[in-house]
Amino acid sequence: MPLPDAEVARLLDTWPVARLATLRPDGRPHLVPIVFARAAGALWSPIDGKPKAGGTPARVRNVARDPRVALLLDAYEADWRQLWWVRVDGAASLVAGDAAAEAALRAKYPQYRDVPLYAGAPLLIRIEPSAVASWSPAR
Amino acid sequence: MPLPDAEVARLLDTWPVARLATLRPDGRPHLVPIVFARAAGALWSPIDGKPKAGGTPARVRNVARDPRVALLLDAYEADWRQLWWVRVDGAASLVAGDAAAEAALRAKYPQYRDVPLYAGAPLLIRIEPSAVASWSPAR
Repeated sequence: MPLPDAEVARLLDTWPVARLATLRPDGRPHLVPIVFARAAGALWSPIDGKPKAGGTPARVRNVARDPRVALLLDAYEADWRQLWWVRVDGAASLVAGDAAAEAALRAKYPQYRDVPLYAGAPLLIRIEPSAVASWSPAR
Repeated sequence: MPLPDAEVARLLDTWPVARLATLRPDGRPHLVPIVFARAAGALWSPIDGKPKAGGTPARVRNVARDPRVALLLDAYEADWRQLWWVRVDGAASLVAGDAAAEAALRAKYPQYRDVPLYAGAPLLIRIEPSAVASWSPAR
């Protein structure tokens, strides 16, 4: 059954990690874990200073070509009665810096005291949710 | 930098959860967390007895129409030097039961002593890996 709306909102505000699905040039799905924060009605993920495989990340190239993305929040527990997930479908765009998003990211992740918020020029993936679904076992 | 091959193999054998990306009818990505086990060179995920939203799961309908999938294993840690991920791209198919896969799933998940391995008729998603990528920060 779906999670209560207030719980979904709390998770979108506080859960530290999500998995981002974008579309490769040939239409196949691409997956990568991301950090993100909610601000101004959208979800934001920076191209930050964590070490990268090199070059422009695939997620950035993919989003520039096709904005259709999905984002999944969940937690695995050995007690399967405790499982849950929240899925956001949306449209992504690339934004060269945003004060509200940067403040939300720095507030959520103290790691940005040490890790640069941006790997190079300011670049954020902005995800505008079009649908939010959730699941948990009936309890 | 990539994880060592032996570490990737260990994670594919033992990590309890992955996020599966499939393709919706309109080509958008669909995401859901899954349990899985490795057997006979493939990764297997059952349509098990955990409560479902109802009807045939979207992942099953998606895979029946388009076999292209991606699977992501990762762990979030507040210490970002400990982050890692493993991504499997592959082709998925639907299989009506497989003895080796069932044995691997039951060995990996003691939860299947209580939760039915199959929600209805035996049904497994079989993922044949075509590429495996991994990442961890340089240490």
